[in-house]
Amino acid sequence: MTITTPRIPAGSVEWLPKEQIAFQRFLETIRRVYERFGFLPVETPVFEIKDVLLTKEGGETEKQVYLVQSTGGRKEGHEPDLALRFDLTVPLARFVAQHEHQLNFPFRRYQMQKVYRGERPQRGREREFYQCDIDVIGKDGLAMGYDAELPAIIYSIFTEVGLPNFQIQINNRKLLKGILESFGIEGKEAQTAALHEVDRLDKIGADKVRERLVEEAGLSADIAARLMDMLSLPSSNTETLARLAAIANPPALLTEGLNELRAVYNGVQALGVPDSAVRLNLTTVRGLDYYTGTVYETLLLDDIALGSICSGGRYENLAGHYTKSKLPGVGISIGATRLFGQLLERGIIKAEQGCMADVLITQLDTSLLPDYFSMAAELRSHGLNVEVYVDEHKVGKQLKYADRAGVSLVLIMGSEEKAKGVVTLKHLKTAHQEEVPLPNLASHIRKHLEI
Amino acid sequence: MTITTPRIPAGSVEWLPKEQIAFQRFLETIRRVYERFGFLPVETPVFEIKDVLLTKEGGETEKQVYLVQSTGGRKEGHEPDLALRFDLTVPLARFVAQHEHQLNFPFRRYQMQKVYRGERPQRGREREFYQCDIDVIGKDGLAMGYDAELPAIIYSIFTEVGLPNFQIQINNRKLLKGILESFGIEGKEAQTAALHEVDRLDKIGADKVRERLVEEAGLSADIAARLMDMLSLPSSNTETLARLAAIANPPALLTEGLNELRAVYNGVQALGVPDSAVRLNLTTVRGLDYYTGTVYETLLLDDIALGSICSGGRYENLAGHYTKSKLPGVGISIGATRLFGQLLERGIIKAEQGCMADVLITQLDTSLLPDYFSMAAELRSHGLNVEVYVDEHKVGKQLKYADRAGVSLVLIMGSEEKAKGVVTLKHLKTAHQEEVPLPNLASHIRKHLEI
Repeated sequence: MTITTPRIPAGSVEWLPKEQIAFQRFLETIRRVYERFGFLPVETPVFEIKDVLLTKEGGETEKQVYLVQSTGGRKEGHEPDLALRFDLTVPLARFVAQHEHQLNFPFRRYQMQKVYRGERPQRGREREFYQCDIDVIGKDGLAMGYDAELPAIIYSIFTEVGLPNFQIQINNRKLLKGILESFGIEGKEAQTAALHEVDRLDKIGADKVRERLVEEAGLSADIAARLMDMLSLPSSNTETLARLAAIANPPALLTEGLNELRAVYNGVQALGVPDSAVRLNLTTVRGLDYYTGTVYETLLLDDIALGSICSGGRYENLAGHYTKSKLPGVGISIGATRLFGQLLERGIIKAEQGCMADVLITQLDTSLLPDYFSMAAELRSHGLNVEVYVDEHKVGKQLKYADRAGVSLVLIMGSEEKAKGVVTLKHLKTAHQEEVPLPNLASHIRKHLEI
Repeated sequence: MTITTPRIPAGSVEWLPKEQIAFQRFLETIRRVYERFGFLPVETPVFEIKDVLLTKEGGETEKQVYLVQSTGGRKEGHEPDLALRFDLTVPLARFVAQHEHQLNFPFRRYQMQKVYRGERPQRGREREFYQCDIDVIGKDGLAMGYDAELPAIIYSIFTEVGLPNFQIQINNRKLLKGILESFGIEGKEAQTAALHEVDRLDKIGADKVRERLVEEAGLSADIAARLMDMLSLPSSNTETLARLAAIANPPALLTEGLNELRAVYNGVQALGVPDSAVRLNLTTVRGLDYYTGTVYETLLLDDIALGSICSGGRYENLAGHYTKSKLPGVGISIGATRLFGQLLERGIIKAEQGCMADVLITQLDTSLLPDYFSMAAELRSHGLNVEVYVDEHKVGKQLKYADRAGVSLVLIMGSEEKAKGVVTLKHLKTAHQEEVPLPNLASHIRKHLEI
């Protein structure tokens, strides 16, 4: 038979079992927190009808899309009429519009599925990756308090994942535009140009941004300098709010944005998020058009270059392409595949402990297989994960298997032990072993696992 | 803005949140049992390189495949070089061959992901559906005892799901071929023709099969009748084994198959599966070529027409297309999307209880939002799923929301309650309400949830 070299497409990721176990635990933490805040699960088909997915004409999005077509349809010369989702936001919009009358608003949904980008694969840019999104969608309106829940969710997730020294950046785009107005920078074009430069602060530094605000966005050197001073002065969150409140003759938009930001900040505090984990950061811009109020980014302070590991914000209308209803929302997204890979690389998440069986029952004597099986059944009924080594290999090989698999406890029983009603429990790492009476076995194993 | 009608592709499924919650619990049960038997998780990319996936030339499989291509690649006139997986077996073969030297054999893996079939959508035949597979893969060999674990896994899953009156059918294809030999039916062609008819027993009944064994498979009327008597005599499992052991001058293959079947049956008993849940059924054929030893099907005895809800078997070599190593295996598969839909339809699984929040905190007084938030944070720290109603709507509307969402407990606190340090806990179904002191709130809610 001809051998085909087994390989996966460039830009896709698959983990070996130990990493996969760690990845699943990572996803489970995210899911558990989402559910603790009362979010409801949604899963949508991996492909959408092409014309439904690509309502926006052409543009950058379309270049990145994967088209899908059955071999039959292709042979018949049809155009592909399906496409893989490239994010979870468009499917959410389609879902909410389609099931609008069966949903309960404000609709709190979470979705943890893979998305697909047909772009050139490169490091950190997978073509297939998990996104874990939550959004709250209102009908006609949505109170600002919802914006306060999202940083509390981000905080809980990354605390439970064990991330050191992360910080949630919060800003408000109305406030940002109001500040620009207060410097006389008005009109969409001029504001977009200025924000485009501010958005690059993390990448190119304050000096470069100031320069480019003059050269590219057309500000005077004086305005550029004062704007940057305003936006990037490091100060505590309460000082930031006080400084903004002290601006004389503030434009209405500035006041509105400031009130929203203050409400979010107060809510975040009421939800128990420590002040050190949150920063009101006026240079957080987060894209240019989609978000209309609160915006979030999350940074690892020891590794700013990683960029934001969880971002999102408030938008005015989710599903204008699919329904006439006005559906404002606020949401965040975690790019779980990429983030997990980075945390693994940095040793922040470790995969070595990845092991499924709590205990492995070795096969010392083939004729005792029924005894091993019923011992396994008994232990499983106590909630333990139990594996039986069924192949008739030498015990040394079986122990090596257990060691490679990362199983720390093995059980050994020959006819002598059976006659005595005991089993030998061996701790692989310490090589400590002891005889345990069968009736005590489950509780004994549990005790060892807890150490 | 032009409105595009929101809809999903024919043959794909998405659930509303309550059904999705029930579906996730269903999947979690399957996962939990797989893990309790020590199986390791694997996830593979949704698409494979087309030439890797489609190693078999043409044939029926290829017709059902979805090809994938980026819009960019299509514009440049390339052929699609990716395809969506149509099952989890080919990706498993590719995975095991690719990572052979990093895996620990016998390799026990489970995989629960969606697969894709480009066929004409019809009832019960989705184009996108979950499969939940487990396989044990050996290197060069794999003991028969592994075949005994799978019925125990099937039994645990469907018991924990709450399925009434299911039965696992077990057979062995060596035994089946040995029986045919003992009737003088020899050679692959004649045996395949005969088994093809026996395989249809559930659909067309014994009389029709007997007829067709003569007309289509070319047996004499006498042989056809005796063969059917042999295969379909209803008897207990031990009688079946005894009857087979009593066959005079058995062909070697019959004896080999019988020994295997007996070993599997003994193992299944040792694993604690009640005899009523298992039937050694000589008419279970399960496909025609892939399986080479043990085969399984699972029937709902009250609804045989549903067909097998979990099937599988033993095969000689998993990955001959990708590696020269000999990798025998045994596995089962559950078509979870279809099965869940059917159980929902029959009321065996109910979605009404699908609710994520244990309790909803209503907003009686806008100025108390920070109190609601910190109460929520406190309850969440006790592991409760808590939702806060943040929109400033009338309490009646908030209660209606809770009722529609299926939340049974709501908390109500105005400034009076706050001053007293209590909160009103209201049970929506009974309309019973009581004042609870704040410090006792979490344990009080837990008590209500347990009732």
